[in-house]
Order: sequence, then structure tokens, then C-alpha cells
Amino acid sequence: MSAITDQLASDAHLAELKGPVASIEAYMGRFLDQRPMAANLREAICYSLLGQGKRLRPILVIRACEAVGGIGDKALGPATAIEMVHCFSLVHDDLPAMDDDDLRRGQATLHVHTNEAMAILAGDAMLGLAFELIVANVEPASKATGLLRELSTATNDMIIGQVYDTLPQVDDRIEPIDRLRAVHRHKTSALIRCACRMGAMCGGASDDQLAAITTYGEAIGLMFQVVDDLLDVTRSTEQLGKASHKDAKQGKLTYPSVLGIESSRREVQRLHGQAVEALQVFGEAARPLADLGDYMAVRTR
Amino acid sequence: MSAITDQLASDAHLAELKGPVASIEAYMGRFLDQRPMAANLREAICYSLLGQGKRLRPILVIRACEAVGGIGDKALGPATAIEMVHCFSLVHDDLPAMDDDDLRRGQATLHVHTNEAMAILAGDAMLGLAFELIVANVEPASKATGLLRELSTATNDMIIGQVYDTLPQVDDRIEPIDRLRAVHRHKTSALIRCACRMGAMCGGASDDQLAAITTYGEAIGLMFQVVDDLLDVTRSTEQLGKASHKDAKQGKLTYPSVLGIESSRREVQRLHGQAVEALQVFGEAARPLADLGDYMAVRTR
Repeated sequence: MSAITDQLASDAHLAELKGPVASIEAYMGRFLDQRPMAANLREAICYSLLGQGKRLRPILVIRACEAVGGIGDKALGPATAIEMVHCFSLVHDDLPAMDDDDLRRGQATLHVHTNEAMAILAGDAMLGLAFELIVANVEPASKATGLLRELSTATNDMIIGQVYDTLPQVDDRIEPIDRLRAVHRHKTSALIRCACRMGAMCGGASDDQLAAITTYGEAIGLMFQVVDDLLDVTRSTEQLGKASHKDAKQGKLTYPSVLGIESSRREVQRLHGQAVEALQVFGEAARPLADLGDYMAVRTR
Repeated sequence: MSAITDQLASDAHLAELKGPVASIEAYMGRFLDQRPMAANLREAICYSLLGQGKRLRPILVIRACEAVGGIGDKALGPATAIEMVHCFSLVHDDLPAMDDDDLRRGQATLHVHTNEAMAILAGDAMLGLAFELIVANVEPASKATGLLRELSTATNDMIIGQVYDTLPQVDDRIEPIDRLRAVHRHKTSALIRCACRMGAMCGGASDDQLAAITTYGEAIGLMFQVVDDLLDVTRSTEQLGKASHKDAKQGKLTYPSVLGIESSRREVQRLHGQAVEALQVFGEAARPLADLGDYMAVRTR
């Protein structure tokens, strides 16, 4: 990571990494166009899903597929499904009864743009449609069930992580750093790990390849959340496109609050190193995944 | 239906129909015990799922499986999954931003018993766990994907029906009765039809058998909602175990409001006749399904 120390490098990487984004967004748009539904529900889902997302998880699906020798375009369905699950979680997390956020991805959150009832239902629909999309578009059945096993488990772990985070039942026998790691493993890492594994499975990964991609996915998943915690402390709302400094306001357990800012930065480096090492076996084929890891370590929003 | 005209007959049928309920509830309890999750989330899910439900949908799964010659116990996983989806929809529909109900199945609704954040997350989790349960417990993969196709499509149609019902965009070119049928087909009938089809698929139904069970499922699904609309007008909150007279208060389109009470009762008879007729081909094996149809036509809560 030492070579990537400034915003310019980060932006350059980001542009390069954005390759599959157009295909992913086109696939999402087509799926939503074709699925019969109430017009106002479609509008709400499009507003959330087709806004300014980083598309990190679907890009990971495509790039992990390619890293193990598969054709990225064949993973577009699962890539779209995981972005829908991610988007469902954002819409519900932003609700007044949850984090009560007005701003997301630089625009009004869905319940502000429409209303709470629609945000609840559109979130529900995105979750349900993610499963429908895979069932309807992946063959053979054994591959579909493998992907659905990954996606359903990760989705439920993510929801459990949200419960740990939003409605904690503090067990004082467990050290704060261990509680924090458990929250992060569920809340953020589960779905990022799942994206990597689903991509590798779409690409026909061997057991060894899948294990290496899983190690990479777990490391960048945890790293993503440590960086998120750091950004919440160090960046403004305008820079982030969502509310900043809210973890402290809500008294949430975060890496900076438990370890301090400098130790948190070292944790980012450690996890980044783990991720890079796991990719060695793939050689050049994993260059885009390595670049994604680099970008995620230094991203600024 | 003419033979079944009073509460006594209804109660007698109900007791007889309750056969598989103990197995279903035991299966649900075991699944929730085994799935690692936050203790407060588990408590919330158990509160909603293991309360006093009628278990109509899971019983339909079991009985439809048996009607086509299958072993009912082999459909317990899918039966539990569909009850979880149903329960997810109740928990979210009861939220303050939706129907704002305090009472459900004779007890406080989940957001009143815990809080809104937990009700949102527990609903999300029940939806996600329904899919996880089928993926983890049904083999071979081709059977699992068949069931998941039914469940995901019906779930999404149900959510779309809830949007039509809660956030209607009225198109005056469509007659009220046609709008009403569209709402009911999505909101209620989709999941009841799905329960019947999933059961038949678990039982290894032929195409003809599946078609007959589908006709039955669609008829009783629509009938269920007409009866629900009638009960809302004719019964008290205490009798229903949930708020009554709320459709009129919320200005919702219902069968009694569009057709009047007597015509709605005739619609119940018409749909009940359709359902009974569709079961003829199964002979005695479909007796429990026919009894369920009889019960649903005369139920009083």
C-alpha cells in the first residue's frame, strides 16, 4: 500500500476499477424493467438502486469470477443480486426508527424522497427480488443453490450484525475489541466476503482458489469497515455524501473509539497486507482484485 | 358449503385440521434454536413466529403434499419457510408507518412488544431465513430451486400487493372490482397459492396434479381475502384478535365496500365451489384440503 498514498492515486485506481460498472447498471435496469410491479415501487427501487453507488460488491463479484479464470459477464446476475441486498440494507438502516439518516450517496434517503411505508416495502422488495433474480437466471440448479446458500447466509449474518450494532446487548465479559470484531464480521464483512465467493463460484473456482478468494474477501471486508469508521471521524458530511461524525453521536463502538486513530490505520495496513498475500496464487489474473483492495484501503468516501 | 353453516361445525373442522400444527411448530422451534443469531433477535422472531397463528399456509403445504401422494413430514421445511414469510409480512405491515396496529394474533404487535427497529430487523431476518432454510434443507438442488422460484415470486408479488393496498396509485380507467381483484391476487392469494404449489411439488406432483392444486390454491387464496374483508365489517376486535373495522377507517377498497355484504358472501360461495371442484381428481386423498377450504369459507377470525 505504500505506493498509494494520495487522493490522485486513489482516483486513478477508481476510474480503472469502474470497468464493469456500466454492464452492472445496465443489467440492473433491464431486470427492473422486465419484472412486473407497481409503478411507484419500481420508481422507488430505481431511485435507490440506480443512484450514485460505488458498486463495490458487484465489481468484486465480477473481478473474483475473472481472477479464477471465469468470464465476468456470466456473473452479472449474482452481481446485481448482491447490490440489491446491499441497497435493501441501506434503505432500512436509514429509516427513522434505525439510524434516521436523511442523506445517502449524496441524495435524499428513500424515506425522505418518498415516505417511510414505501422505504420499508421497497427494501423488502429488493431483498426478495435478489433471490428471485438468481433463481430465474442461474443454471444449472446446483450452481444456483450454491450461490443462494452464500447469499442467504451472508444476508442473514448482515441483519444479525445490524442488530448487534443498533440494539446491542452488551456482554461485559467480552472485550470491546472482540465485540467490535464480531459486529464488523457480521455487519460488513459477511456480504463483501459473499461477493468474492459468489464471483469465484460463478468462475468455476477450485476448492483452493475458493479458499484463497475467501481469505481475501474476509480481510477486505473487515478493512472496509475500519476505513468506514475512520472516515466517519476524519471527513465531513459533504465529503462523504452521507452524515459524518454520527458514530460518536450515537455512542457506537468503532475502531477509532476502541483502538485510537493511529492503531486503526495500522489495522487497515495489516488487513490490506493479508488481502494482497491471499491473491499471490492467482498472479496477474487477480490484478483488478488487488487494485480494488488498494483502493479500498485509501478511499476517501 | 351448505352443510357447514355454524360455528360448531367450523370449530370441529378446525380441530381436525390442526393435525400437522405440532410438527410444524416443533420444526420452526428447532430451526430457530440451531441458527446462530443475537439473543434479542431470536427472542423477537420467536415471539412473532411461535405465537397464536392459524398456521394456515404451512398446513396447506403439508396437506397439498399428501393430496398428491407425498409424505407430509418431508414438506416441513418449506412449510416453515412459508410461515416465516407470512410472519415477516405481518410484522412489517403492523409497523407505525404502515397499518400502525397494536394487536395481532391476540397479543401486542412486535414493535409494541420490543421496538420499531427490532420489528424492522426481525421482519427482514424472517424473510432472509426463509430462503436460507430451504437452501439448507431441501435436496436435490433442482427441487430446491423449484421451491425457491415459487417462494421468491410469491413473496415479491405479495410485497407488490401491499404497495397497491397501502400506497395505491388509482387508475380511474380500471373498475374498482378489477382493481380490488388485482390487489387481492397479489396481497393474499399469491402466498396461499404458493403454499399449495410448494406442497404439491414436495409430494412429486405430476403436471396435471400441480395444475389442479394451483386452481384450488388460487380460489381459496381469493376467498380467504373476501372472508377477511367480511370479518373486518362484521366482527369485533376482541373476536378477531386484531383491530376490526379498520378497512373502512383507512378508506381501503374491500369486497363489502365495492359489492356489498350479500354479494361478497355469494363470491365466497362461488370461489369455494371452484376450490372443491378442482380437488375432485384427487378423491379421498384431498379430503383434508377440502376440509380446509370448508373451514376457510366459514372461519370467524
